Amino acid sequence: MLLAALSSSGSVAQRFEDLKKSGTSLTLRGVGSFYVGGKSVARTAAQIGLYGNGQIIVDQMYVAYMLPAKSVGTAVVMIHGGTLSGKSFETTPDGRMGWYEYFVRKGYDSYVVDQVGRGRSGFDPAKFNDVRAGVSPSGSQPNIRRIGSDTALTRFRIKQADGSDFPDSQFPLEATGELAKQVVPDMTDMYSVPNPTIPGLSELADDLTQVVMIGHSQAGRMPLEVVLLGKGNIRGIISVEPAGCTSSVYTEEQIRVLSAVPILVIFGDHLSSRQPVGANWGDALADCEAFVSRVVHAGGNASIFRPVENGFRGNSHMLMQDRNNLVVADYIIHWIERLPPKH
Amino acid sequence: MLLAALSSSGSVAQRFEDLKKSGTSLTLRGVGSFYVGGKSVARTAAQIGLYGNGQIIVDQMYVAYMLPAKSVGTAVVMIHGGTLSGKSFETTPDGRMGWYEYFVRKGYDSYVVDQVGRGRSGFDPAKFNDVRAGVSPSGSQPNIRRIGSDTALTRFRIKQADGSDFPDSQFPLEATGELAKQVVPDMTDMYSVPNPTIPGLSELADDLTQVVMIGHSQAGRMPLEVVLLGKGNIRGIISVEPAGCTSSVYTEEQIRVLSAVPILVIFGDHLSSRQPVGANWGDALADCEAFVSRVVHAGGNASIFRPVENGFRGNSHMLMQDRNNLVVADYIIHWIERLPPKH
Repeated sequence: MLLAALSSSGSVAQRFEDLKKSGTSLTLRGVGSFYVGGKSVARTAAQIGLYGNGQIIVDQMYVAYMLPAKSVGTAVVMIHGGTLSGKSFETTPDGRMGWYEYFVRKGYDSYVVDQVGRGRSGFDPAKFNDVRAGVSPSGSQPNIRRIGSDTALTRFRIKQADGSDFPDSQFPLEATGELAKQVVPDMTDMYSVPNPTIPGLSELADDLTQVVMIGHSQAGRMPLEVVLLGKGNIRGIISVEPAGCTSSVYTEEQIRVLSAVPILVIFGDHLSSRQPVGANWGDALADCEAFVSRVVHAGGNASIFRPVENGFRGNSHMLMQDRNNLVVADYIIHWIERLPPKH
Repeated sequence: MLLAALSSSGSVAQRFEDLKKSGTSLTLRGVGSFYVGGKSVARTAAQIGLYGNGQIIVDQMYVAYMLPAKSVGTAVVMIHGGTLSGKSFETTPDGRMGWYEYFVRKGYDSYVVDQVGRGRSGFDPAKFNDVRAGVSPSGSQPNIRRIGSDTALTRFRIKQADGSDFPDSQFPLEATGELAKQVVPDMTDMYSVPNPTIPGLSELADDLTQVVMIGHSQAGRMPLEVVLLGKGNIRGIISVEPAGCTSSVYTEEQIRVLSAVPILVIFGDHLSSRQPVGANWGDALADCEAFVSRVVHAGGNASIFRPVENGFRGNSHMLMQDRNNLVVADYIIHWIERLPPKH
């Protein structure tokens, strides 16, 4: 099957007819989107690059949802990683079903967000237009992050440091060009701590019942931070390939709070592969092992799942897009099914 | 019913439970997303604000789709307007069904894009990070546009110039705060002509069959430009409240090309309402009337539909979000049903 063809521009072109639609229909009782969070701030016409002084809304967060016809009564919220968007959980780069659709098919009310400052959540242009106008010094402008196409392959453990393939890679290597298209500008450097995505997720959790949060990479720790905010109806947390678990940062009191919520941390394969840039993934795993130990010691339900320990070799950082993505999802669903209900 | 409550931040908070889910289920044979277009360009680590020199993909366009279980065999592509995203066509600000879901329920394979440079399509951060680093002069930085919350209400003819309501407004006035959250940064000023969204739409049209394109406001003329590119499998064009139709710009040869494709232009009510900023909407209508005359004179099928002439008063610029949005959609569907098939 011709999955992808090299276009004249040198990038990979994917044809709609090549997407592998599911063979069975999907019946929904609801589909749509809404925003959570946001505050109104005053801006001049020059700051918003268009006519009219006035207010704009900033820090709002876009949430898309699909609700299955027959719900198991649990809501799953998916939060993408750095320089990515909610697209991470939709159709995979090679056109297979992503976790968003799969969890709906398994009966979960499913919500996919764009982090504040990213994608359809938007951002405040004032600091950029102020620099353009010469009103503010250039150094005051926030850094905008994107990850390079090839850098992502190494950082996400899709390829080895020398550019060669892992012989057992689970990532669809023929579609790395499509993954590169999913990379969008990341405005994280605009925001002070906590990133507005955290209170946004908290507000979303308050809106829902029996909430399980799945955070990936940059967002791997965000559900923990929502719990530490002291509100949010969180029944369980799945942290997929977090950049680390900041095990030594949490106070005993914080660990006690976190121990009240079941936590599953997931890591793929090849964690010791050499990284030309960025931190070592083995260190992230070790940090999370230490974190899990602290939570368990405090009486909590925390564990680490690695597909490689169940015989699945070659999982990348993008577990939700790997060829065995639905097998990994099945493990998560099995874990969710055993969670006690949240009262 | 309590639709929306004023939050402490002064913005409107919408609760998920307040969204009016459809009472009947929706059965899909496919749902997902993909990218069209895009080219690979070289950037330094400083330009992408992160480690690693290398390539990134720019000018790609995000496309979400829902395919009904029973399709009428026509694809509808929806393109949002300026400083907005594909969200325009999803759940309305007051939580009702948008055109995206409605067209699927009516049997249309439906596609909603984020214009290049907007939302999940992303943009190239290099020109911004170059200015931040002092490598480029501040004036070289592209302007970023957002429309102000109150300015949008006047420009979109949701409120009168003095801030008072139109007594007969079709827009859900209790939810203007939610509309303000849908406004995202518009990077149009980064791009030369044609905006990369045009070839992106062309590539998308080539991928599909029996394509009807619905462009709103800023995107109202884009389907015409796709046809003028000389490719694209376009069966019909609906231009919803275009900022104008550039009637005097097209050559006779271009009008001849455009006359081969059926065109419907739609305008709401209150076109003569005073605009404190921006062009007069009455001028846009007059321009489109002149355009339609030229196309009809060349033998084409072009017309203007105004709900007000069918007895519906008070439609705003955001016809896809007005209270009678599905009535307007029904008129569009009636028009589509009469189109000859595209061979």
